[in-house]
Amino acid sequence: MILSLKRFLIGRPLKTTEAGEQKLTKAKALAILSSDALSSVAYGPEQILIVLVTIGAAAFWYSIPIAIGVLILLSALILSYRQIIFAYPQGGGAYVVSKSNLGINPGLIAGGSLLVDYILTVAVSVSAGTDAITSAFPALHGFNVQIAIVFVIFLTILNLRGVTESASVLAYPVYLFVLALFILIGVGLYRILTGGVSPELHTPIGTPVAGISLFLLLRAFASGSSALTGVEAISNAIPNFKDPAPNNAAKTLMMMGALLAILLSGIVILAYNYGITPRAEVTVVSQIAEATFGRSYMYFFIQATTALILILAANTGYSAFPLLAVNLAKDKFIPRMFLSRGDRLGYSNGIIILGFASILLILAFLAETEHLIPLYAVGVFVPFTLSQTGMMVKWYREKPEGWLPKFIINTIGAFISLMVTLIFFITKFSQVWSILIFVPIIVFVFHRIRKHYEDVGNQLRIQTCEASMPIEGNVIIVPVAGITTVVENTLKYAKGLSPDQIIAVYVAFEREDEKKLEEKWKKWQPDVRLVTLHSHYRSIIKPLTKFIDTVEHKAGEANHQVTVVIPQFIPKKGWHNILHNQSGIMIRTLLMLRRNVVISTVPYHLIK
Amino acid sequence: MILSLKRFLIGRPLKTTEAGEQKLTKAKALAILSSDALSSVAYGPEQILIVLVTIGAAAFWYSIPIAIGVLILLSALILSYRQIIFAYPQGGGAYVVSKSNLGINPGLIAGGSLLVDYILTVAVSVSAGTDAITSAFPALHGFNVQIAIVFVIFLTILNLRGVTESASVLAYPVYLFVLALFILIGVGLYRILTGGVSPELHTPIGTPVAGISLFLLLRAFASGSSALTGVEAISNAIPNFKDPAPNNAAKTLMMMGALLAILLSGIVILAYNYGITPRAEVTVVSQIAEATFGRSYMYFFIQATTALILILAANTGYSAFPLLAVNLAKDKFIPRMFLSRGDRLGYSNGIIILGFASILLILAFLAETEHLIPLYAVGVFVPFTLSQTGMMVKWYREKPEGWLPKFIINTIGAFISLMVTLIFFITKFSQVWSILIFVPIIVFVFHRIRKHYEDVGNQLRIQTCEASMPIEGNVIIVPVAGITTVVENTLKYAKGLSPDQIIAVYVAFEREDEKKLEEKWKKWQPDVRLVTLHSHYRSIIKPLTKFIDTVEHKAGEANHQVTVVIPQFIPKKGWHNILHNQSGIMIRTLLMLRRNVVISTVPYHLIK
Repeated sequence: MILSLKRFLIGRPLKTTEAGEQKLTKAKALAILSSDALSSVAYGPEQILIVLVTIGAAAFWYSIPIAIGVLILLSALILSYRQIIFAYPQGGGAYVVSKSNLGINPGLIAGGSLLVDYILTVAVSVSAGTDAITSAFPALHGFNVQIAIVFVIFLTILNLRGVTESASVLAYPVYLFVLALFILIGVGLYRILTGGVSPELHTPIGTPVAGISLFLLLRAFASGSSALTGVEAISNAIPNFKDPAPNNAAKTLMMMGALLAILLSGIVILAYNYGITPRAEVTVVSQIAEATFGRSYMYFFIQATTALILILAANTGYSAFPLLAVNLAKDKFIPRMFLSRGDRLGYSNGIIILGFASILLILAFLAETEHLIPLYAVGVFVPFTLSQTGMMVKWYREKPEGWLPKFIINTIGAFISLMVTLIFFITKFSQVWSILIFVPIIVFVFHRIRKHYEDVGNQLRIQTCEASMPIEGNVIIVPVAGITTVVENTLKYAKGLSPDQIIAVYVAFEREDEKKLEEKWKKWQPDVRLVTLHSHYRSIIKPLTKFIDTVEHKAGEANHQVTVVIPQFIPKKGWHNILHNQSGIMIRTLLMLRRNVVISTVPYHLIK
Repeated sequence: MILSLKRFLIGRPLKTTEAGEQKLTKAKALAILSSDALSSVAYGPEQILIVLVTIGAAAFWYSIPIAIGVLILLSALILSYRQIIFAYPQGGGAYVVSKSNLGINPGLIAGGSLLVDYILTVAVSVSAGTDAITSAFPALHGFNVQIAIVFVIFLTILNLRGVTESASVLAYPVYLFVLALFILIGVGLYRILTGGVSPELHTPIGTPVAGISLFLLLRAFASGSSALTGVEAISNAIPNFKDPAPNNAAKTLMMMGALLAILLSGIVILAYNYGITPRAEVTVVSQIAEATFGRSYMYFFIQATTALILILAANTGYSAFPLLAVNLAKDKFIPRMFLSRGDRLGYSNGIIILGFASILLILAFLAETEHLIPLYAVGVFVPFTLSQTGMMVKWYREKPEGWLPKFIINTIGAFISLMVTLIFFITKFSQVWSILIFVPIIVFVFHRIRKHYEDVGNQLRIQTCEASMPIEGNVIIVPVAGITTVVENTLKYAKGLSPDQIIAVYVAFEREDEKKLEEKWKKWQPDVRLVTLHSHYRSIIKPLTKFIDTVEHKAGEANHQVTVVIPQFIPKKGWHNILHNQSGIMIRTLLMLRRNVVISTVPYHLIK
């Protein structure tokens, strides 16, 4: 039943050889990997204005130069990641680039930040999208957490089904959002150019403003650059692209950069010309849409696609997290279960754990994750800085033909990313300090895991030089609970192994039981020695392990192997198990963890 | 660490032979087994007045004849249960009495109702006590659920420590409560008799009242009889008494009956003479205490002991539930785990499950369990009726010397109990209908469990006539994941068993792995046959079970036994397990449930 539910939700299993069919075309990849970056348009420009409004509406013209700064940063990042795609066609991303050029620890810092960041992406994006929906339908207020969790579960199932199928579903909202904003920007610009918008609404560019400071402008710039979260997703996901993967990925990246630049500039220009002031209850995009179209169908279309793309932005996390986890698991820094592909060839464990962690985060913050946004942005810019510094080192070391322009691009990118990171730490320390604690802990855990895998590897490696002594005999211990067909079946098996000795052990709680069993046993199995142990404290395990220790000690001296053969009846139906004490299972678990004896279970299947 | 926490909470384990020392004296038994019955005084009289107030304060004099009716019912119940104690000195209770005189199903109905009822006792009493506390300390309002759960956990731990130790702690509040009410009633009566209370406050007995009806009076009587819940506890717990157990239990029961009668009459008389009207926010006992002492220390002393005894009333459930469970488990109607005694000789499983179920109930009803009280009363009166009808049948059948008075006592008891039950169903059907659904389900489950145990018993019984054929040979299958010391160790063990055949099986996901391993294997273990299976769907289990089926089929024809020997390394620390996929455990579980093969696990303990 569970199996058929699973089939229904995620589809039939796919053969390993079907992997190629699951690859992404450019159009689908753009939809699946850029929803995070594109959705940032919905809040990036607003973040700039929120900082500037502390001075006054006269300062709004600064949003234009600041947006130009963000666009320069965007170009630097896009160009830099384009270079990474070709340099690391197996899926680069900050972890691989930092690790191979800067060393293990910078790589782990980048990888650890990103792992956490993808969880934040899912939690923050889904919560923001849910907010947009519950703002539109106030009756749903109070169910934010439940709705957000349903969306996370929905995205998790989609991703377990596989990337292509997710892409088909996810492509429409992304393209509809782009279409909606294009119409908005087109109509808005037309109205501005034809004089449909009063030029008195905004202060001309260059007007001197009292109280403006470099600190404030930098802060506005840093806030605005939160619109760039998500641009690294494509470079992580190159293996998901159709061949030739790097070329397709690079083209998709450029396309995403162009779309992002157009949408960002458009929104900033419209907001400036309309003289829009950020307000708590209505978003900037919503104000622009209302100013352009009034509360028409077009307005609701823009709002709806914005809400949708915010939820789908979470999907970027689902594409990137499992692949990053694979890279970390290959290097043995995280558990190896992240390496195995599920029925539909996705890295199911990564997908499930991401979904689970996001739900926990949503529950912990009750879907009110606004104050996680700066943390989330820092979590992106730290790996940005590291990966671009890594690329600088790479170009400088390898010096391939025409390396200088590439070096310069990455240097600019690294410098701006570092500046943004520093500005975040300086201006919003109270919201981002926790990353200084979490990332070192994560890196420490990575190292511990790696160390354990190496220890295990060394212990499992065959030392061909030393030949171990063969076993010279067998002693079999059979714990029995009475004279039953299950015990009979087990003794038959034990005798079939023709061991040197079979000892049946009975643990008695009452003296009378002891005697009764001993008498019956003599008649029933005269050739098998029965040892009865008395338990004062009504525990079976303690007297048994004590006895086994004694036997094992003697056997070890004679180089005999001790096997504990446990009779176990298997009820016909699962629920029957709660009706039986099943001491067998407990005995087996405890013995295996502590003693050096082989545990055999002889099943006896009940037929009704 | 878990072990030492357990030691700290519940104390050192006790030997089975120490059981006698844990028995109860009469004084402790009275405290431990009557808190439920005595605490009912805190709400029983109030329930009568709440019904009468619907007619008007003039009808309050009816509380006196109604209370007399309740006292008659109480006497009938006490006398009847006294007879049960001597007739069933091993611990009677409604289940045993109904089963042996009326048959299995009436017994199961009584047992099932009581099992559920004891859970209700705990949940309702603890919630009511918590309400009393949070009424006194309004700052704690809003934490009702948490406080109630803490009390349940506290009571569970106390009972796991053992009955004697619980009794020592619980005796004080019960006796303090009795003392407090004795002082209250004494001072109150003195004031009434000396004319300190105005006689104008109440209508004289016998005044005609407009609108009174038999239905209403019966309803008031049924409500008042909810004060009698808990009187059956002593007859269930006879084995907990010091020898001579039945005599001691009977004396304790009479003592409890006397105390309950005095307290009940006292409160009703005071309420009538003071002319007290039930109010939503202040209990009747609280009003009486305030009218007698004002808001003095004495008032708070009465309130505090009332709150305490309500919480301790839950303890009756802890005494009775595990013993009833033992009786049901001995008859194989519930899982046999309820038969085993814990470290401190209490029936720990019953205690833990009772605690757990009560917490679930408290969480489900958020500690607002008031509307469960009628259900709880019906759950008591159904077994009351059944057990007394059972006693009637017993006397009539056996006709021992002087049986007639006994028969009459039980007949009166059975009749009144039946009437109360019917009145509950007629007047409060909307609150008690669910018992008509739950009890049949419980009885059905009891029968299913009994049937299963009988089936298993038949299958486990040795049929001496047929001698089974001995096993003629052994085939060993070793699933391997590579060439490691763990596999080497396992193969050494397998060879030590000198089987007819050893087959190593490797499940490959990639063709290259397959070839590489085959080549290495030939050099490493040339004498062990290696079979490689290819898995298209990246599952180890499916190809493996298919292969084992084939081998088993062949082996079965030759009367050979198949043993699957699983190499398993045991990491040094528990947390390491999450770093390994441990397919071994999954293979073992699945094979054991479905196939008729012996599963051996050869542990290889890692040293770091």
